[in-house]
Amino acid sequence: MIEYCVATYRCYDDKADFEKKATGIAVGLTVGSWTDLPEARKTEMEKHLGRVVSIEIHEPSGDSVDKRYADIAIAYPDVNFSRDIPALLVTVFGKLSMDGQIKLIDLKFSSSFLSAFPGPKFGMQGVRDLLGVHNRPLLMSIFKSVIGHDLAGLREQFYLQAAGGVDLIKDDEILFENPLTPIEQRVSVCLEAAHQASERTGQKLLYAANLTGSTARLAEQARKAISAGANALLFNVLAYGYDALHELATDPEVSVPIMAHPAMAGALYPAPNHGIGASVLLGKLMRLAGADIVLFPSPYGSVVMPKADNMAIQHALLTNKSEDYLFSFNSSNDAALSLAPSFPVPSAGIHPGLVPLILRDFGTDVIVNAGGGIHGHAMGTIAGGQAFRQAIDATTQGISLQDYALSHPELKAAIEQWGVKQ
Amino acid sequence: MIEYCVATYRCYDDKADFEKKATGIAVGLTVGSWTDLPEARKTEMEKHLGRVVSIEIHEPSGDSVDKRYADIAIAYPDVNFSRDIPALLVTVFGKLSMDGQIKLIDLKFSSSFLSAFPGPKFGMQGVRDLLGVHNRPLLMSIFKSVIGHDLAGLREQFYLQAAGGVDLIKDDEILFENPLTPIEQRVSVCLEAAHQASERTGQKLLYAANLTGSTARLAEQARKAISAGANALLFNVLAYGYDALHELATDPEVSVPIMAHPAMAGALYPAPNHGIGASVLLGKLMRLAGADIVLFPSPYGSVVMPKADNMAIQHALLTNKSEDYLFSFNSSNDAALSLAPSFPVPSAGIHPGLVPLILRDFGTDVIVNAGGGIHGHAMGTIAGGQAFRQAIDATTQGISLQDYALSHPELKAAIEQWGVKQ
Repeated sequence: MIEYCVATYRCYDDKADFEKKATGIAVGLTVGSWTDLPEARKTEMEKHLGRVVSIEIHEPSGDSVDKRYADIAIAYPDVNFSRDIPALLVTVFGKLSMDGQIKLIDLKFSSSFLSAFPGPKFGMQGVRDLLGVHNRPLLMSIFKSVIGHDLAGLREQFYLQAAGGVDLIKDDEILFENPLTPIEQRVSVCLEAAHQASERTGQKLLYAANLTGSTARLAEQARKAISAGANALLFNVLAYGYDALHELATDPEVSVPIMAHPAMAGALYPAPNHGIGASVLLGKLMRLAGADIVLFPSPYGSVVMPKADNMAIQHALLTNKSEDYLFSFNSSNDAALSLAPSFPVPSAGIHPGLVPLILRDFGTDVIVNAGGGIHGHAMGTIAGGQAFRQAIDATTQGISLQDYALSHPELKAAIEQWGVKQ
Repeated sequence: MIEYCVATYRCYDDKADFEKKATGIAVGLTVGSWTDLPEARKTEMEKHLGRVVSIEIHEPSGDSVDKRYADIAIAYPDVNFSRDIPALLVTVFGKLSMDGQIKLIDLKFSSSFLSAFPGPKFGMQGVRDLLGVHNRPLLMSIFKSVIGHDLAGLREQFYLQAAGGVDLIKDDEILFENPLTPIEQRVSVCLEAAHQASERTGQKLLYAANLTGSTARLAEQARKAISAGANALLFNVLAYGYDALHELATDPEVSVPIMAHPAMAGALYPAPNHGIGASVLLGKLMRLAGADIVLFPSPYGSVVMPKADNMAIQHALLTNKSEDYLFSFNSSNDAALSLAPSFPVPSAGIHPGLVPLILRDFGTDVIVNAGGGIHGHAMGTIAGGQAFRQAIDATTQGISLQDYALSHPELKAAIEQWGVKQ
């Protein structure tokens, strides 16, 4: 049986014959030519030939900003490429990315391609199990500033964040190996601070240390950080390629959750007529490659991604329906998806007054992530964390932030500072 | 002395205070905050602080398509990041890529950052030396279709290309490890065909075998291909990240030129207000990472890149002026650049009638690259290669293709088939 991976493109063109374009892609990016082939050769080559799955043409309404486009889905036989993400991407969007106004907006996989990807080692449930927190959204905080700080400075910042009751702390993604805070020593002092804070909060905590440096030495760096006690890793996936994440996630010695940072994603997803859609870039491919936790720009704060994109990423990270990931011409995909869900983390510009909105959109299965909204709290960093925890508690109990603030001074101060967004 | 790498951005915004935005970037992506710091701390942190180098504001002319933007150059102290391309990119365009309409349009490097990059191992001169061709543009051809072909089919295609007098043959970038033509056997039969053709043409030939598969095994694959006789490698750089190329280029066992394919580049360079400019993406970073030969979409054929972008890539690949790559606040950079030039290859849609245009724009330092323009020749593949060589000979001798065609039937047929573009 021939199995296919399917790519869906949005192609903008004022007057193209989209049927012809679709056939051109299906043939051109697989067997090269078809109609010229002798019949005997066609029989042999059929298993390599791409197929047009669907073409949906959007004709403009006459409004000058509304442009003509078509969503074209092409099925690529998976025998044509090896079972790795670079091979898939180069096949479906290598040359084609340069062919006019075209954006890759969805990917589905053959069952044999998908079988090469165990996905997140921990996933959402595994992260909750490590923290022992199952019934509420988690809270993460980011260091305020780290460049030029020494170990003592980092330790202090870490302690203040942890003492406020956050569940996860992540390195700044721009903290690289440096003489002041090398990864092993940084992990060691930060986890010492975590332990100290834990005596106060009674909570567990994950610290995602930033995995950086040369590609060939990423696994070694990860092992170094883990031996020093790191219980999570942060990784700038797009600067290294999805395959580097896949290798880390499938490495048995990388025994901690991996958090995918979206650095560089803005070079790829925002343009309407070029690039790769957010739900593919930060959703499906991150989960496929094994990210346990995935950060992406929230629609609430300073770095803005449209809410529809956020919801599409959320769906891609959490869905347990095979039909969202698997493609088959022949059979329905009603089995549960084998990939564990990745924890979604809408990020940037988050303050406690946004918690009701985040939980309305994401429910309980979300990590609320804040930087300035914790460190910038008028009563200090510890109060900043507490205000967030209070906002989460209030919202999950169905109490308005304003009401809850009456008996919670940290939340009260936060609301006075940043307001509440409904 | 503080050394800096400089990133230049084009930021679109109808009403932003660009001075404020520039300062926000310079501070926000380095020390985090500045004005709040105590004076003593400022002294300590100054070496980590980003600097605004320049702001050039373009006010719209009133024409509705002309938008307001500013080109903002920010200097980042190189002590803030490790000496690798992922660290640089994440620093200068990690988070910032997601911050509104912004495109990374240039990069310059500190001398210490640059010193970590030996650049192309062979470069343009090294490739010419391997081929023994110093006084004319080179000719490369691409397999027509390869998927589903067996070794005998590939060998035949290879021979026909080689016999026409091409200097280089590259694998299709979508040819991955597969049971029909695994890399070692492919290299072995193709080089056998090259040898056979060489007896006819008296020429040397480089065959760039496509290096694919998992990131951690790229070097092993490269060694395998090289032991089988591969004398060049093709690599889909953007699917793996620049650092993977850098590692291959600096690996002493990778003793052959590396050809960088632009697969996926269209997801990054074409949008005016997002992504990474072509001269950075396919120019400076490819050369820095060590590509000996760089392919990019030509402005002449089917896959279109604006000519200005082509010329900017060419400049980035060939310039020997330090000032194009090096940044310093203090000294002029009048020494020659230490990086060897990378061979530029404008690709896609090329036929012999375009050779005068290509040579007008690129001079002698170019690889003319064709697929359909060779295989599709009315007199066959061998004649296709010959027609190109004739077009190159005519143009370098200052003879018009039409005149040269009078005594060269292969060129004559090509002109009848595709015309001549002036």
